[in-house]
Amino acid sequence: MEKITGAVRKPVSSLKELITIADELVQDGYKVTAEGMIHSIRDMGEFAFVILRSRDGLLQAVLEKKKGKLDLAKETEAAAQVEYTQETEAAKTGAQEGSVSEKLHEGEAVRITGTLREEERAPYGIELVVEEVKVLSKPAAPLPLPVDKWKMGASLEARLNQRSISLRNVRERARFRIQEGIVRGFRDFLYEQGFTEIHTPKIGAKSAEGGANIFKLSYFHHPAVLAQSPQFYKQMMVGVFDRVFETGPVFRAEKHNTKRHLNEYTSLDFEMGYIDDFREIMEMETAVLQYIMEMLEMEYENELQILQVELPNVDVIPAVRFDEAKRLVSEKYHRPIRSPYDLEPEEEQLIGTYFKEEQGADFVFVTHYPSRKRPFYAMDDPNEPEVTLSFDLLFRGLEVTTGGQRIHDYAALLEKMASRGMTSEGMEGYLDTFRYGMPPHGGLGIGMERLTMQLLGEDNVREACLFPRDLGRLAP
Amino acid sequence: MEKITGAVRKPVSSLKELITIADELVQDGYKVTAEGMIHSIRDMGEFAFVILRSRDGLLQAVLEKKKGKLDLAKETEAAAQVEYTQETEAAKTGAQEGSVSEKLHEGEAVRITGTLREEERAPYGIELVVEEVKVLSKPAAPLPLPVDKWKMGASLEARLNQRSISLRNVRERARFRIQEGIVRGFRDFLYEQGFTEIHTPKIGAKSAEGGANIFKLSYFHHPAVLAQSPQFYKQMMVGVFDRVFETGPVFRAEKHNTKRHLNEYTSLDFEMGYIDDFREIMEMETAVLQYIMEMLEMEYENELQILQVELPNVDVIPAVRFDEAKRLVSEKYHRPIRSPYDLEPEEEQLIGTYFKEEQGADFVFVTHYPSRKRPFYAMDDPNEPEVTLSFDLLFRGLEVTTGGQRIHDYAALLEKMASRGMTSEGMEGYLDTFRYGMPPHGGLGIGMERLTMQLLGEDNVREACLFPRDLGRLAP
Repeated sequence: MEKITGAVRKPVSSLKELITIADELVQDGYKVTAEGMIHSIRDMGEFAFVILRSRDGLLQAVLEKKKGKLDLAKETEAAAQVEYTQETEAAKTGAQEGSVSEKLHEGEAVRITGTLREEERAPYGIELVVEEVKVLSKPAAPLPLPVDKWKMGASLEARLNQRSISLRNVRERARFRIQEGIVRGFRDFLYEQGFTEIHTPKIGAKSAEGGANIFKLSYFHHPAVLAQSPQFYKQMMVGVFDRVFETGPVFRAEKHNTKRHLNEYTSLDFEMGYIDDFREIMEMETAVLQYIMEMLEMEYENELQILQVELPNVDVIPAVRFDEAKRLVSEKYHRPIRSPYDLEPEEEQLIGTYFKEEQGADFVFVTHYPSRKRPFYAMDDPNEPEVTLSFDLLFRGLEVTTGGQRIHDYAALLEKMASRGMTSEGMEGYLDTFRYGMPPHGGLGIGMERLTMQLLGEDNVREACLFPRDLGRLAP
Repeated sequence: MEKITGAVRKPVSSLKELITIADELVQDGYKVTAEGMIHSIRDMGEFAFVILRSRDGLLQAVLEKKKGKLDLAKETEAAAQVEYTQETEAAKTGAQEGSVSEKLHEGEAVRITGTLREEERAPYGIELVVEEVKVLSKPAAPLPLPVDKWKMGASLEARLNQRSISLRNVRERARFRIQEGIVRGFRDFLYEQGFTEIHTPKIGAKSAEGGANIFKLSYFHHPAVLAQSPQFYKQMMVGVFDRVFETGPVFRAEKHNTKRHLNEYTSLDFEMGYIDDFREIMEMETAVLQYIMEMLEMEYENELQILQVELPNVDVIPAVRFDEAKRLVSEKYHRPIRSPYDLEPEEEQLIGTYFKEEQGADFVFVTHYPSRKRPFYAMDDPNEPEVTLSFDLLFRGLEVTTGGQRIHDYAALLEKMASRGMTSEGMEGYLDTFRYGMPPHGGLGIGMERLTMQLLGEDNVREACLFPRDLGRLAP
């Protein structure tokens, strides 16, 4: 019988740790051990650079062949194409005995021991002078994509087809560290603001709200659907926790194949009670964005630099009415208004351009969307019932958030449903919540991938999704 | 056009804020404003207690009727049963004018202004002496469950049927604050440990692994399935980020209707590279649990107290081999071993009892599960190939985690699949990851609801799920 105590036992340093105390390590000549995958090898004759890739970045290790301990395969490319089945066994045995592997190749996972020295041409200004290499695992084939290139040059299709390989490229993967920061900032700020995190079901009974864009499945012989959003559940939880949020997947069976649409995406949702005005939701989102940008600046500096991302200013976000926004871009860009009820993608882009040009703003709230284009639960403006107390947030001309105040009065909700010819079938749990009393409330949903995409200046939302699902893609 | 700056504008205090600076507020007689739903009303003749429920707990407001400003409905029960349609309009108008509502009832959302004074019999030792009440919204019917009772006394079935109401009970909802703390602690600790958070798809192509317990759906006329776990994806991302985690829904079409099973639950998954021994995974989990318990102690003290939860000691967790565990309980509790390859639920319970009795331990790792009962990707013990380098974590006799080391060598993975008669159909993206090299790695999945359930001492996992999905329940 053993005891597990949670203590960390291994004398291996992360690159982050090495960088942090590099000065001390260099000065004192301490022996350190680092691990990672061999990202690339450059044979310089008498010595070789072995670039080690770990989660924190690249570490240059320098292998001085004269020391005789290590012998690098001379023809790396050719050698890598050999089948490793035999060698794998040998390497395993070698690793167990702690001996030094005879050859090193790209794609191998290794643990390297040596001393650190200053080298200003290397990443982070340090390099590891190799004393011992332990090969932990070997690939069975050379990498199919040049992941060690700064820009891989492969098509989006090729990169998505081999996602677990293409993301080994340092720039490709950096996007998802930034994405982590976005979600982390979203949650951390909302915890601080008294929101409770919830986890609501993704499989549900078919409801009247749904519409066409819904994935259907059979749930033990009952018809069921996948959640398009946590909308109903988060509203239902406002009566319990006052303020709630959820970060989770949503499913949209939309038959669009555009650069902006995914059929499964991660939605960052919050819902807050006791609002007097729907502007409070926009204020909360602005504060969330401010917090996210601060977090990225503090904790994800490395990735921002890799991707050359300049963070947008979110101190102030202009808000403009839907009809006003349409008029402004129509006048400035001489574009006739075709539909008074919808924003066409091109109009969204122009609104983005307009506010960038006129006010230097990357974000703009568009408010008071027409009631007929918003869901039944959206609260109409009491002074102007054909528009809603709702908004979209555009980021560089793309909608990244939809939000607004919801109807909280039971009678008003039933009335709105009746006016749209809706039945309450499948919505009993939702409606009962209002029957028994609900505070005034509102909220929003942010598309995680879209926000990431716009922040990074990507032109396709698939670049900001680890494993995108679209009309033609169900794997990997 | 407006400017949104993220500034907080409202002069309303949260209960948490009031409690924090209560001494000062009492001494200086500052006017404060609080909001919430009327949880209960106790009419005492000359005055009334109005208990206000907000996210932080209950606040006692005292309404002195002699002041003449407020008139409480004399027959609360009867009055509440009246249809409020008329009154709602009146209240709305009233609220807009800032006037004081004539009557107050349970289930209303209100904003109360007054001064704070000490009252040791009230929650948190304070009460709010009411000067003004603004009714923000009114219910259309009296609450169908006695949510203001300390123990509601309603059946699980009744509480689940009206989940958005039953959770308004302070004890019922406290469970989900604890649950928040568990997930938050899980993430925060792993961020610190260099893990990257990932979001992987829940809809996927049908794969050979699946088996019978899988929900199927049609994805634009292609056969698709809902993810049983993020297993393949998190492994695939170890080659990219070294260490990853995900907190998200998983779907199991199991036809069990037990107190321990849900058909959709939230899985807390992590996967870590560069392990030399599967014990490192158990050590990481132990450290995660230590962090979670500390977080609960620091940040969720109120809820722990409400639910009278005593946090388990997780300084040391014993680990025992599967075969040894079976032998120990068989001997001590005189129970014949029926199957050498499985742990029956009763055996799990007895293992829990054994380690509680013998070592005072609430948790126990059971290691080296038989290979035939573990998935193909589990790594067999090289010294004893009929068992795996894997474990379950039992918490008070219930499995809350399954984990272990995975096969990272491509040839070994193909061999294991072949030995089980599996084809690689639908697993190309997964297998290619190994073909091109993967570090040694392992990980685990924790059932969020089960961990919550055991921590709280509940006897049904549905108590620890906001909206459970089981064989018979698809709504609300």
